[in-house]
Formats: sequence, structure tokens, C-alpha cells
Amino acid sequence: MPTIAVDAMGGDHGPDEVVKGVAQVSLETEIETLLVGDEARIQAVLERVPYNPEHIAILHCRDAIGMAETPREAVKKKDASLVVGVRAVADGRAAAMVSAGNTGACVLACAQHFTLLPGIKRAALASVYPRHTEYDGQDPLALLLDVGATVRCEAPELVQFALMGSAYARRISKQPNPRVGLLNMGSEEGKGGDVLADAHRRLRALPGITFVGNVEGNDLVHGKADVIVCEGLLGNVVLKLIEGIADVVTDVASNAVKQRLLWRFGMTLLSRGIREVAHLADYTKYGGAPLLGFEHLFLKAHGRSTARAIENAVKVAAKAVRDKVPQEIAEGIQAIR
Amino acid sequence: MPTIAVDAMGGDHGPDEVVKGVAQVSLETEIETLLVGDEARIQAVLERVPYNPEHIAILHCRDAIGMAETPREAVKKKDASLVVGVRAVADGRAAAMVSAGNTGACVLACAQHFTLLPGIKRAALASVYPRHTEYDGQDPLALLLDVGATVRCEAPELVQFALMGSAYARRISKQPNPRVGLLNMGSEEGKGGDVLADAHRRLRALPGITFVGNVEGNDLVHGKADVIVCEGLLGNVVLKLIEGIADVVTDVASNAVKQRLLWRFGMTLLSRGIREVAHLADYTKYGGAPLLGFEHLFLKAHGRSTARAIENAVKVAAKAVRDKVPQEIAEGIQAIR
Repeated sequence: MPTIAVDAMGGDHGPDEVVKGVAQVSLETEIETLLVGDEARIQAVLERVPYNPEHIAILHCRDAIGMAETPREAVKKKDASLVVGVRAVADGRAAAMVSAGNTGACVLACAQHFTLLPGIKRAALASVYPRHTEYDGQDPLALLLDVGATVRCEAPELVQFALMGSAYARRISKQPNPRVGLLNMGSEEGKGGDVLADAHRRLRALPGITFVGNVEGNDLVHGKADVIVCEGLLGNVVLKLIEGIADVVTDVASNAVKQRLLWRFGMTLLSRGIREVAHLADYTKYGGAPLLGFEHLFLKAHGRSTARAIENAVKVAAKAVRDKVPQEIAEGIQAIR
Repeated sequence: MPTIAVDAMGGDHGPDEVVKGVAQVSLETEIETLLVGDEARIQAVLERVPYNPEHIAILHCRDAIGMAETPREAVKKKDASLVVGVRAVADGRAAAMVSAGNTGACVLACAQHFTLLPGIKRAALASVYPRHTEYDGQDPLALLLDVGATVRCEAPELVQFALMGSAYARRISKQPNPRVGLLNMGSEEGKGGDVLADAHRRLRALPGITFVGNVEGNDLVHGKADVIVCEGLLGNVVLKLIEGIADVVTDVASNAVKQRLLWRFGMTLLSRGIREVAHLADYTKYGGAPLLGFEHLFLKAHGRSTARAIENAVKVAAKAVRDKVPQEIAEGIQAIR
């Protein structure tokens, strides 16, 4: 069983929810976890919940990185839980890392301490999001990358994102042939300027992936593609917009429930219809965003992660290690070099 | 009263819905319209609906541009309703043009026949979209530009978009100081690469607009900014994603209503909560997307426009002409040269 390092101090609800999530993992699975952070505060949480001490170790450090800190300054804190955890993974003490902390600092810490896989130009942060499916058995989650490790990208980098995302989707969602799309402003292959037109041509000619062509903004909510490739600026805006709309839907639904008894009755009657929309909001279920392209795995859980979200992120990280996602990516890259 | 040229053949529902919308305008207002398209087909629709013949003229042409045609080829059809209409505006026969046709062809026809205002580098297609407001009296619609007239932009172009969008919002939504935001992947001013960091600095120093800084994807659904500036690739994906999600919400809601009597009852009880979300979907109400930066106005109505949407687009076009939107933009640009 792999050991997963977990940044106990990261996220809006660390260390409480993080430690509770890890405690739950220790009871339900054989996964070994290494909780990185302030030992006294970690122990204080563990005293209040059931857990299996055989599966949990603590790596003490005093410092932590706040959600609003500037990444470049923050990662200079050598005794911060995120930095200590990433170094522990790089040194082989754990196989992968999970953090709900400051996204920029997470990406930067990995860039400083992890090694890119042979041939990989840049790492990409990938995020799953829920969408409507087009056929039975299609994964209800699509994978969007990059969502913020890069800003602008060249065509060869977008091609590598397609290979990395495809490998992750094959292993984690068990779809043998995930459909890959290029996020663009039109369906024709020449759309979106030189970089996207070049990326389209390269992807169409690429062996080992199932390229379905350009996808537009409205296609993102349907099942046209399972892996959607774009530069970080575009992916970041898209992901946050989906989250923002999901929050509005949830607010409207929960206000309706709170404000009026009749509405509450209506909600019950409507439950399936509403759930189909409101499930968009429940990011806590989806196990976090993998940072792909390094020899080691890093899983970024949402800043608002609850114990349940941390629990799922740790399980997904362990699955990705067992299923050898980095090796799968490395083989995909080697095959086209 | 200004004359508004209307592409009778454009859109998914032209000429039927287009002509019906114009007929309604002729009854309700003093706006003069010039219906451009196949006279026999236009007359056939007019025979079936009430209208005021004093307010409607027809400019006959035989050809039309299909929604799926390649813009560059399509605008070579010199007798197509879109091209004939745009030329009629350029020649002074009408003050502005409305079309629900092929977006790429609309932008290209204007680029070929209209003249950019002095100092303007590139035109931008702006679209309104509904969002939550932050204070009483804030317009429930925000303006996003560019949504597809450009692909990539330089910082000075984004600054001009801010001025153009601000001028349009001031005139059309009667907000004296619309708040302008720069769409980006983080709130800090240095985010998003060189172009966006440069645009941020320039916008902060710009007199005559109210710059609120960077806005992220999730901010788009709230009232942080009234005018949101971005390159065409980003704006196009964002707009189509909002439309796509709105369609899903509408589908879920209407399926719920159709499938189960209890759900229908639930929908009624929930009506206000649902309406708050579902109104996102009703693009037909919002009068179309102005193409800004030219001496003449062009209003792109949604391809799926119904008579009601065309009616609103013609009214907005007439209002923009009366309120001298191009002159307002020209003055804003002159002020910073």
C-alpha cells in the first residue's frame, strides 16, 4: 500500500477537516498516510475522532502557508507543511501528496522539488468537473487541463497535455479510449489563431489518443469530449466560472428551501431535477485536481474541502499511485518522441 | 427617427421570425426599418401579420448566407442580404444594421464595408449576459467584450475595449459609471502574463473609466464589474459556456415539468427560485450583441432569435443610434490619445 503525504494545515478548513478526512481513510482502507503539519494541533483533532493509528504517521513542522499568501514568497518558508510534504515525497518518504492549500504555492513547490518526466515541457493542473453524458457508461466527469499551472501555451505543450490527460482518464476513470477535445472558439480546424490551429493539426495526427476535434464553450457541458485541453488562462477562467454558476444554483436552491415552507415542499417534489443541476456544485466529491507531468503525483484538493473531500482525494491519490499514472504518462510521451 | 436595416434572411428562423419581429416594431414604435432580403418571401410573411406599412421598406436581394457557411467565402456573395444591408448602412441608407445571421460573416462584412472610428485599432463584439447584482439599481446585465471579433489581443486593444464597453453601457444601461474589470486568472495585478499585466497597469491609469481590477471566472456571475474586458478567444468560450449551462438548466426544468405531474406542481411552488436561474437561458430578451468600434452600429442578434428577440434588437439599435453610441466611443478614444 502506498504512503500518501497530506498537508494537514492547507485549505480553508485545515487542520480540522483535513485530519478528520485522513482519520476516516485510516478506518476504511489500508492506505498509509503521512500527516504533515503542527503535531500538537494534529493530535488535538485525532483525539476527538476514531482512527486507526497503524495507518497514520505525523511529520511535524511548525510553519504553514496561508491561502492568500503570494506563492513566490510563501514557498520560501522551508518549514511550511506544504514544502516539507513535497520534499518528503521527492525524497521517497511518500508516493504522492495531497493538499487543499494555496494553489499557486502548490504548483510552485512541486516545480521546485519534483522532477519533470523525461520529455515533458511543462506540468499541467487538471481538474474534473461534472457534465451531461452522451452515452451509457460515459464518465459523468470530464477532465479539463491546464487550469492554472501555465498561462499561455505553445502547440507542443497542448499536445502533451492531451497525452497526460488521456493517460490519467484511462487509469482513473477506466475509460480505455477517452475522447480528447481542444477548447476553441469554433469547430473548424483553422480556428483560434496559429497556436490552436497548429495544435489541432498535431492532435489529429497523434497516435494513441482519440481526438474529436475542437470543442466550444457550450460543448463543455455535454459529452463530446472526456479530456479537454487548453492553456492555463482559459482553463482557469472556465473552471472558476463553472464553480461560480454552481454556487449560484446552490444558493438559489437552498434559499428557496429556507425561506418558504411551500418551496421546501416543492424542492422535495423536484428533487431529481434539482439534483441534476445542484450536483454541479458539489466539488467536494470529486477528489481534487492532479498536477500532471512530474515523476511524483500531487493532488490539489479544493480550498473549501471538507473531511469527505480530503478522504476522496487521498483515495484517488492512492489509486493513481497504484495504477502507475506517471509511468503511463511517461510511456505516452516516449511513444511520440 | 433612425432607419434600421434588418437582415431578413439571417438566423435559424429567418425570414419568418425576423419579419414578424419587424412588423411588431412597426406597430409599437416610430422606428423606420429597411428589411433586406427576398422581397417575395418577406411579403409572404407580412401578409400574415399586422404591421404598419409606413414604417417598413424592403430592399430586395436574391441571395442569403447560411449559418454554417465559411465567413470568408460567404461575404463574397455580393447580393446576399447581410452584405447588401451592411453596404446600405455604409452608404447612409440606414443608420444601423441588425442581423441574426452567421456571426463570422457579420463581423467580416462590417470589417469590409464599415470604417473604424479614428484611433480604434480593432472592433470588438460585445455581448450582454445576466448575472446577480451587488447593489440596488445595478444593471442585471453585464457586458462582456470581445466575444469573437478577435482571437488574441494586445494590451492597448484591451484598453480600447474597456472604453468602448464603458461608453455602450453608459448610453444603453444608463449607468453613469459602469465598473470595468479585466478578465484574468487571479486578482493580483501581475497575473495572467505580460499582456494582461500591461493591460491592468494601463487600465488603472486610465481617466474616464471606473476600473475595479481583475475579475476571475467566478466573479462573472456576480456584480463586481459591469463591463468585462478580454480577448476574443476567452470571451467566446465564456459566453458559449454560460449559454450551454443555461440550456442544461432549462432542459432539466422543462423535462421535470413534462415528465411528472408532481414535479410540475413542485415547479410551480419553486417558481421564483427556478426563474432566477432559468432567466439565464432567455437570451432572446437581451437585444443582441453590438459590434463596437466602427462609425456605424451593427447589432448581432442570437442565431436562435425569435420575433421577440428581433423586436428587442431593433429597439436597442435605434436607441444606440439616438444616444449616439459611436460618437461617445470616439470621444472616449480622443480623450486618451
